[in-house]
Formats: sequence, C-alpha cells, structure tokens
Amino acid sequence: MNDEEARHRAKMAARKAVQDAEVASKTITEKGLLIVHTGPGKGKSTAGFGLALRMLGAGGRVGVVQFIKGAWETGERAALTQFGERVRWHSMGEGFTWETQDRARDVAAAARAWEMARAMLVDPALDLVLLDELNIALRYDYLPLEGVLADLAARRPLLHVVVTGRNAKPALIEAADLVTEMGAVKHHFAAGVKAQKGIEF
Amino acid sequence: MNDEEARHRAKMAARKAVQDAEVASKTITEKGLLIVHTGPGKGKSTAGFGLALRMLGAGGRVGVVQFIKGAWETGERAALTQFGERVRWHSMGEGFTWETQDRARDVAAAARAWEMARAMLVDPALDLVLLDELNIALRYDYLPLEGVLADLAARRPLLHVVVTGRNAKPALIEAADLVTEMGAVKHHFAAGVKAQKGIEF
Repeated sequence: MNDEEARHRAKMAARKAVQDAEVASKTITEKGLLIVHTGPGKGKSTAGFGLALRMLGAGGRVGVVQFIKGAWETGERAALTQFGERVRWHSMGEGFTWETQDRARDVAAAARAWEMARAMLVDPALDLVLLDELNIALRYDYLPLEGVLADLAARRPLLHVVVTGRNAKPALIEAADLVTEMGAVKHHFAAGVKAQKGIEF
Repeated sequence: MNDEEARHRAKMAARKAVQDAEVASKTITEKGLLIVHTGPGKGKSTAGFGLALRMLGAGGRVGVVQFIKGAWETGERAALTQFGERVRWHSMGEGFTWETQDRARDVAAAARAWEMARAMLVDPALDLVLLDELNIALRYDYLPLEGVLADLAARRPLLHVVVTGRNAKPALIEAADLVTEMGAVKHHFAAGVKAQKGIEF
C-alpha cells in the first residue's frame, strides 16, 4: 500500500466510524415523516414523485393529490398507472391558478381536493401521500392553514407525507420532520430554451 | 363580482400575460438538457428518479448509472423494473465508498461505470440518462473531470442528462443548462429518527 492509499484508507475508516456511530444513535425506528420540498428551484414535485417511486419499489402504496397543477401535466401520472391500484390519484384539474382567473372556483376545487387528502391521511391502506403544490394553495389562502395543519397532525402515525411547492408557510416547516429548500442556480429558460417533454411535463 | 374577486382576477390575468410572453420568447424548441442536482439537502437523487419516471410516462427510455451507491439501495430500482426494457441500469455496486476503504478498487469500479455511461450518452435508443452521484466520483478524483466533461459535451444532442451529488464541480455547473441546489433546512436524523424504508432506501 502506498502513502496515498494509506491516507485514503484511514480517511474512509474514520468516516465509516462516524457514520456507524450516527446510525447507532438513532432511537426512533419507525415514524411517519412529514417532508416538505420548497424553494424557488426545480425538483420539488419531481423529488416528491421520486419518493413515490421509491415507496412503490419498496412494495408500498401511494396516494397523490395535485393542488393547482391540472390535467396537462401527465408524464408522472401516466408512469404511475403502471403500478395499478397501488397508486390513488386526485387532481384539482383546474390548470394553473393564473389560467382560471376565478377565485371562487379555485377555492371550491381546493376544498374538494383537501377532502380527498383528508381521507388519504387516515387510510391504513396507504404508506405515503404526496400533496403536490399544497404550499401554493395555502399561499393563496385557498385552504385554511390551521385546518390543514390539524389534519396533517392527526394523520395515521406511520404515514409518510410529502408536501411540495414554493413559499412553504413557517408553521408547516415548524411541523415538518424533513425540509429541503430547492434553490435555482441556473435555468435553461433564461437561455431561451422551451419546456422539454419528459423533463418539464 | 366583489372587490376581492376583481383584484384576484386582475392579478391572475397580469400573471398569465407575463407567463404567455415568457413562453413566446423561447426560441429553442428542442434540446437535450444537462441537469445538475447538487447541494447538501435531500432530494438530489430522488428528483433524478422523478425525472426518469416522468420521461417513462412520456413514453421515453431511460438509462441509469449509479456511482458510489451500491446494491443495497433498491427501492427505485425495483420500481423501475416495472418498465421492462425501457430502463437500462448499471450500479458500481461497491456500496458507499467509505465502506470499501480501497481506493484502487473504487477507481476501477468508477471507470467501468463511466464506460457504461459513455455508451449510453451516444445511444439513440435513450431519451434520458441519470448519472446518480457522479459528483461524488468526481470529487474523490475517481474519474478525470476533463474526460467526463468532454464525453458529456459529445453526447447525442437531444439526450437529456441528469447528474446528481453534492459538491458539483464548478466546470460542470458552467456546462449545465439547469442547476438546482438542494439545501438542508431540517432533518429528522437530528431528532433521533432512523432511516425509513420507502423514504431513504
């Protein structure tokens, strides 16, 4: 073993020891996590669907409620139909909110979508529920924050929930177990490139 | 229509006009994007798998090469087997690097994985290639940065590529079309909660 190899081995052994100690320190073995993906960057919903995929891969069942986004965004929905009845899906189906220009209709659609979500939150048949763009519905006061937080807190204890959308409310972040902020470092739209099929939709 | 509704409608109409103008300003209609997910937060690989799922939903074909991560992380792999031959997969299969403690073996495994990636980058049968944790392999100098950048630049023009892993090299960010930095706002490990099946693996 030369010097470089020896240094590498020592460094990696130290890192493994730290990681092993960290794993050993964990005391709560099973808990339904409240996960929030927020921030201005890409990947919030996409990472939510990635978690759905992982849960399906682990043999679990997934519920999806899409707030704000409508029927035109169908790539992930089409893909998840592969998993048959292990995926349950509800879309508000009004398109992006700035296309409806009718607040009363948006509020009513959000309320219906939340009723679907509430039912999923206590359904023992589900392992993960993705509340896609819920933060947008909360930001526009389409849904009452207090009621949403109460329903999330009253969910089945082992249910994992993923909430996506920019501008997550501070009270939601406070309630969450895991929060990731997606930051926009660079975007191809700025270089004049259109939304790409299979990537943006 | 009351005042609040009128204000909402005017605001949403203005927003829609801005969005329509933005869409109209895009001049490049089709381009294979180089996408980078980096930063210390969760969701980098997960959003990569979410993009793979979306592309599969759009009828496309996906290649995955996993650098660093080994065979134990099987949730997304198991899920993607649903899509049969539309998904091609290669894992370095050595587990996390700090578990091998053998630099020469890591370098050799990374080189083999890159050969698989290179073949995918020019394969007309693929629409998206996910190079999971490539940034880690680059950070440890398991692969030569210059060669990797050259191979990425020489890829099929319509191929989308997603590179994940923290500490993305500045030259890779420079070359990328779309870069998201995942920031860690809050993590349940800090509260003593173990990694959860279907969420972390």
